[in-house]
Amino acid sequence: MANKDVTDPVRMEKIVSLCKRRGFIFQAGELYGGLNGCWDYGPLGAELKRNLKDYWWRKTVQERDDVLGMDGAILTMEQVLQSSGHIGGFSDPMVDCKTCKGRFRADNLDTYECKEKPSVCPGASPKCELTEPREFNLMLQTNFGATGEQVAYLRPETAQSIFCQYKNVLDSNRVKLPFGIAQIGKSFRNEINPRNYIFRSREFEQMEIEYFCRPEDGMRLTDEWLETRLCFYEEIGIPRAKLHILDVPDGDRAFYSKKTYDIEYEFPFGIQELEGVAYRTDYDLGVHAKGSGRPLEYFDEETKERFLPHVVEPSAGCDRTVLALICEAFDEEELGTDGKSDMRTVMRFMPSMAPIKVAIFPLLKKNEEQVRICREIQKSLQPWMNVFYDDSGAVGRRYRRQDEIGTPFCVTVDFETLGEEIPDLKGTVTLRHRDSMEQERLSIDELLPWLLARVR
Amino acid sequence: MANKDVTDPVRMEKIVSLCKRRGFIFQAGELYGGLNGCWDYGPLGAELKRNLKDYWWRKTVQERDDVLGMDGAILTMEQVLQSSGHIGGFSDPMVDCKTCKGRFRADNLDTYECKEKPSVCPGASPKCELTEPREFNLMLQTNFGATGEQVAYLRPETAQSIFCQYKNVLDSNRVKLPFGIAQIGKSFRNEINPRNYIFRSREFEQMEIEYFCRPEDGMRLTDEWLETRLCFYEEIGIPRAKLHILDVPDGDRAFYSKKTYDIEYEFPFGIQELEGVAYRTDYDLGVHAKGSGRPLEYFDEETKERFLPHVVEPSAGCDRTVLALICEAFDEEELGTDGKSDMRTVMRFMPSMAPIKVAIFPLLKKNEEQVRICREIQKSLQPWMNVFYDDSGAVGRRYRRQDEIGTPFCVTVDFETLGEEIPDLKGTVTLRHRDSMEQERLSIDELLPWLLARVR
Repeated sequence: MANKDVTDPVRMEKIVSLCKRRGFIFQAGELYGGLNGCWDYGPLGAELKRNLKDYWWRKTVQERDDVLGMDGAILTMEQVLQSSGHIGGFSDPMVDCKTCKGRFRADNLDTYECKEKPSVCPGASPKCELTEPREFNLMLQTNFGATGEQVAYLRPETAQSIFCQYKNVLDSNRVKLPFGIAQIGKSFRNEINPRNYIFRSREFEQMEIEYFCRPEDGMRLTDEWLETRLCFYEEIGIPRAKLHILDVPDGDRAFYSKKTYDIEYEFPFGIQELEGVAYRTDYDLGVHAKGSGRPLEYFDEETKERFLPHVVEPSAGCDRTVLALICEAFDEEELGTDGKSDMRTVMRFMPSMAPIKVAIFPLLKKNEEQVRICREIQKSLQPWMNVFYDDSGAVGRRYRRQDEIGTPFCVTVDFETLGEEIPDLKGTVTLRHRDSMEQERLSIDELLPWLLARVR
Repeated sequence: MANKDVTDPVRMEKIVSLCKRRGFIFQAGELYGGLNGCWDYGPLGAELKRNLKDYWWRKTVQERDDVLGMDGAILTMEQVLQSSGHIGGFSDPMVDCKTCKGRFRADNLDTYECKEKPSVCPGASPKCELTEPREFNLMLQTNFGATGEQVAYLRPETAQSIFCQYKNVLDSNRVKLPFGIAQIGKSFRNEINPRNYIFRSREFEQMEIEYFCRPEDGMRLTDEWLETRLCFYEEIGIPRAKLHILDVPDGDRAFYSKKTYDIEYEFPFGIQELEGVAYRTDYDLGVHAKGSGRPLEYFDEETKERFLPHVVEPSAGCDRTVLALICEAFDEEELGTDGKSDMRTVMRFMPSMAPIKVAIFPLLKKNEEQVRICREIQKSLQPWMNVFYDDSGAVGRRYRRQDEIGTPFCVTVDFETLGEEIPDLKGTVTLRHRDSMEQERLSIDELLPWLLARVR
């Protein structure tokens, strides 16, 4: 639930504006008026999102022995979603207002503003005339085949393809319980009221793990995964103090879940969910075994038991986490000293998440030797990280432009680099830190290892 | 066009079987009988595809100054596709056979087999009764909004979101012509006859570049991009001798294209297209400027000219390239010496593309010290690459299992590692090369730099 006490709409507006201006995020189809609830990532947003997804994959799949990756199709068979309960069950209760013609989620009426002035929540004014709640399916459907005879859905979550391929993964990889299958990919929901920027959108990307285990280990592993996931957020720069853990009470959880934690973050628009860690028991494999008529049991070589594994599901929203990274990084700093106001906007991304790792400047763009050395440095770093070359305007302004997009390090090739003033400094560059704005000199030869140790 | 002379269906069957058995590729929804034309990548396939996409992004975006990335939505507004010509124009001419009830692409009748026995192409038997060709739109449609009132399409290509955001990217990134915008992502087409495994599917991933330039540079840059792209395929392990360049003749090109090259590969099912490099003139920006009523001109600061940039588009199929990598890598080698037949199956991926870079074995799984050292090595390598630990069965069999999935290097910790036999060899491991099967000894300390120099 949004906690209205901590909201900061002015901060949010500044963030949205910066993201558009510097090319993090654009509205999809903006040229034609925009497609509501869909977003395009611009050059910097695409890099930020890549960094997040790559780090998640590295920590979840690459660095673990017990988790395998997969990459399933978005188009999903009707039978799959029939078994999973999404057809029929995956719906929100909606009410219509006969007066303003708006449609609202019945369980969230207090978060809307009705068009009536002075603005109130739907149902709060005597003019409002709300219908009874009706179930509204959230899935997007499509048709294909030669005559459009085949129905398919755009997956509402990546999880179902993991359950459907669990047996194939098991058989082809000789894995033993407990083990997980992880996936990153797009999912789609017909959100009636997409809002809060990229937080609640119709097209979104998920980072999901289905962790299969023995029934007796489910509760313990749910707690372990919660801790693992909290550490992940800290590692990417979201402090634990800004994360809230909601232990979803009985009655609010899905009927098959024995335990669910929501990991929430203090967004400028309220405290909202980033990830759910749910102990789903054997519900999913059970419904697919029944629906497909095929055995999905696991055979334990040691105990000679045959049983349906239970599942713990840490399911994170990728776009939500990108937004949390952006909100957490955004800072304005008053630098004015002698009475003049000087506000510095700086995105304090962790170096591992920053879209551009290092910017390279010649002090003077007309100095051919400085430019040549810059280009050499750039070429030597580019196979390893995103580098940005900039030679326009005063160096101070170039620093500020990089601060605004969160580049953690700037390297300036100057007259000292050429050895023209102090011979000892020949072959060194000025390295400037984004957060402290401190500068130090570093030899060009040290630059790659120095940066590599900090930007991964 | 498929060249039937070079097809090798037996080889293709072996490849498909290996991909299923070892977890590269599964049919989507297989548990429920399968979703025709859609595929799920299993653990190894997902890693292979990631390697390909990451390398493309690195070479195309990260290592170039003149190309920016983006990541746009799949859901696409009707107006966008109206302007682009996909609504109305994006269709295949189809014929129906009244006898067998099949539907076939009218321009490709000779590649089908009709159900009539003995099997012939549609129209080749006197029994066939074909209708006149009718246009069949290839786009998948969906609806959303509170009452399903909004129509959207699943994008048939990633290119359109690039054209629609070209102005936003230009304005937010201070770039000058020529520059490109690159994107990797899913696209969808209602292929009537998905076939050739993952080659022609309904859901597929593209790697596209739209390279904006001055009109007078278009033809030259098209040739330059062709060469750049050919080098890319060589770098990932597809030899130029297996690539065919089709200079698409007048009349066969799209009406707005002044030059189009198809880059084709010798698949076991024929010579088929991997990528198109097309000079699209100012067609795309022109139709979107007209359709949206918004100016999309570029203003050249130096010449003070205002004009619509021209576009060169290198558009590669990601799944097709994955399949080419698999087909190129697949090899069977007869190793039998003393009259016994011994066939080794080996996937000769380039180390940079291989799903797993190195496997680590203790010679004896019961030797605790060997296992401990293996786990230490594994932990030290895992932040940098995919590592696989295996301790089951004879080492020779473990090598073969890795050969079959293309792991370029295997490391065995043995008694020499422990210094039990020859003190000088303490702290060294056996490193075995996949292709030559040669072995050498390497110190554990050297392992990470040695591997890093080879697997990126």
